Amino acid sequence: MNSPLDKIKSNVRAISAYTLAPLEAQIKINQNENPFGMPREIKEEVMRRAMKHDWARYPDFVPTSLLEKIAGYTGWRADGVMAGNGSNEMIQSVVNSIVEKGVRVVLSEPTFSVYRQVINVAGGEIISVPLNEDLTFNFPRLASKIVTAKADLTIICSPNNPTGCVISARDLATIARNSDGIIVVDQAYLEIGGEDFIPLLSEHKNLVILRTFSKAMAMGGLRVGYCLAAPELIREFNKAKMPYSLNFFSMTAAEVALENLNLLRPLVEKMQRERERLFAELQKFDGLFIPIPSAANFFCVKTAIPPKELFEALHARGILIRDISKAPMLSEYVRISVGTPEENDRLIAALREITI
Amino acid sequence: MNSPLDKIKSNVRAISAYTLAPLEAQIKINQNENPFGMPREIKEEVMRRAMKHDWARYPDFVPTSLLEKIAGYTGWRADGVMAGNGSNEMIQSVVNSIVEKGVRVVLSEPTFSVYRQVINVAGGEIISVPLNEDLTFNFPRLASKIVTAKADLTIICSPNNPTGCVISARDLATIARNSDGIIVVDQAYLEIGGEDFIPLLSEHKNLVILRTFSKAMAMGGLRVGYCLAAPELIREFNKAKMPYSLNFFSMTAAEVALENLNLLRPLVEKMQRERERLFAELQKFDGLFIPIPSAANFFCVKTAIPPKELFEALHARGILIRDISKAPMLSEYVRISVGTPEENDRLIAALREITI
Repeated sequence: MNSPLDKIKSNVRAISAYTLAPLEAQIKINQNENPFGMPREIKEEVMRRAMKHDWARYPDFVPTSLLEKIAGYTGWRADGVMAGNGSNEMIQSVVNSIVEKGVRVVLSEPTFSVYRQVINVAGGEIISVPLNEDLTFNFPRLASKIVTAKADLTIICSPNNPTGCVISARDLATIARNSDGIIVVDQAYLEIGGEDFIPLLSEHKNLVILRTFSKAMAMGGLRVGYCLAAPELIREFNKAKMPYSLNFFSMTAAEVALENLNLLRPLVEKMQRERERLFAELQKFDGLFIPIPSAANFFCVKTAIPPKELFEALHARGILIRDISKAPMLSEYVRISVGTPEENDRLIAALREITI
Repeated sequence: MNSPLDKIKSNVRAISAYTLAPLEAQIKINQNENPFGMPREIKEEVMRRAMKHDWARYPDFVPTSLLEKIAGYTGWRADGVMAGNGSNEMIQSVVNSIVEKGVRVVLSEPTFSVYRQVINVAGGEIISVPLNEDLTFNFPRLASKIVTAKADLTIICSPNNPTGCVISARDLATIARNSDGIIVVDQAYLEIGGEDFIPLLSEHKNLVILRTFSKAMAMGGLRVGYCLAAPELIREFNKAKMPYSLNFFSMTAAEVALENLNLLRPLVEKMQRERERLFAELQKFDGLFIPIPSAANFFCVKTAIPPKELFEALHARGILIRDISKAPMLSEYVRISVGTPEENDRLIAALREITI
């Protein structure tokens, strides 16, 4: 007797099911979210529009109004923008339009785990280039591997999750120029730090930039991501994206956010200031905790206390961080998101208590 | 000089980009939506919960509360439910976990066009079984083709979009029993008509049922679909689904809808009554319009006026229907969704005007 599981592709069967225990804590600094939340004025305006809207009707087939606002915000052309259900859907659409068995994808790892998941489902071959030991990009090795492996696709996260390291526009341009493949840069954390690569798009037709409303825009719960590239590539990526994948509410929220950047920018500045302060505070622990410089709203922190133990000690004190010690190179690390000033104070106090 | 387009898979390049002109009209009976809209009480309760919610936080990794409510509503086990961004994402996850080059997928066509799109992107081989000439399922031919072609996957839409025909539980059980492959039944329109196949799930481990909140639940704009199957299959499908694909707002709306079925059921009954009335009215045009019996909230209508002409004549009168004449077998047909009583009256009046 055959099992229906025999019909599941072997590369999917081989993936371990990703699970995340639903842990509760007063202070959640485990998912790199905007700790200040969405400003009340924006929420209220979104609600006003949503109440008037007919929920039973499908969203626009092409969210023209949002695409034009994104074009205005980023400085890129509207016909070179695709928007959808979080950066995750953008990654999936790009990968599914390029990757099948035999297609070679270069990743600089450790990095965001969704890339590997989607490439595995699509059956691609992953060529992994490790970061330097200090958790910065190994540009020479990455650049040469992309060429020698004849990478069809390269995905770079800058600022990189979970390490916070960045690639420079100059290095990225070199990579794009020297590769026949498509180069995707995930800039989910761009508003918080790192160089904006949009000026490179018009010259490098193989460059694709992913952005999101989940971080600086305080919309992690609403799932809106977008992809910027040459219009002829966007046209192909759209074929691999599901129609109507962006619901009307998230679309409305993204538009209202872009109309009210004056309310969101101060939150980003606060995150940047708190990042500097938290970094300095973590350095005061006599080497027990070593934060890695980061352009984003989180740090990799090397810990003398085993990561799992530290995670549990903090959780017992109402603080949720991310134990990333199972990732390559990161067996001694945790990842800590930058919280509100009060949350960061409580984190530091808890770390003092734990290390006494 | 190579073009970045060379890196797009040939099967994706070959797909014609699907576009839908954003036409305006007072009466929209072109997308099989719930014409009555979401009841105000449900909207207000969703708004109350959304206002209290922190939008910056990611949704739950597993939407346990919604999965349990769906289990209660459908009578299937919660660990055999996956929910996500519309039925479209469910179709995509199932297809992407099964289909790659060389995988054989049987479709009964004409049917919902997204199946073909997703299978093409994944590189699968489509084996198409036509409906009977009267636009009902050709069960003998479908059943035998699934066996002789050794279909790895079969997708059946029941009630079928755009024809409204249904397959019986008995015939579906025969297909599931005789096939080694996975049998997906898309029941997007189930609440409006057709047999519920959930009682077959426990016996047929290769059966997968797709459902949605977009139709009877009046949530087309919010994109919530779900998939019901044996837990071991759901576990695999989840690996091909993007994490956090269901935003908190749509998730909340789905829960509130399930808590208030008493407000939604009367709308479904109205749709059913209006379907019968509209069918009878369309039959009165002396054979100029021949509606095909349908279990859903739409009809295929055979028209003596060329479909494009009819579409334009109605559009000029503020009514938007769907010209489906490019689909196989349907060169003489349009698809008309059942609207509100007033909308249906206006449609009939407009058709009289056009045919005088």
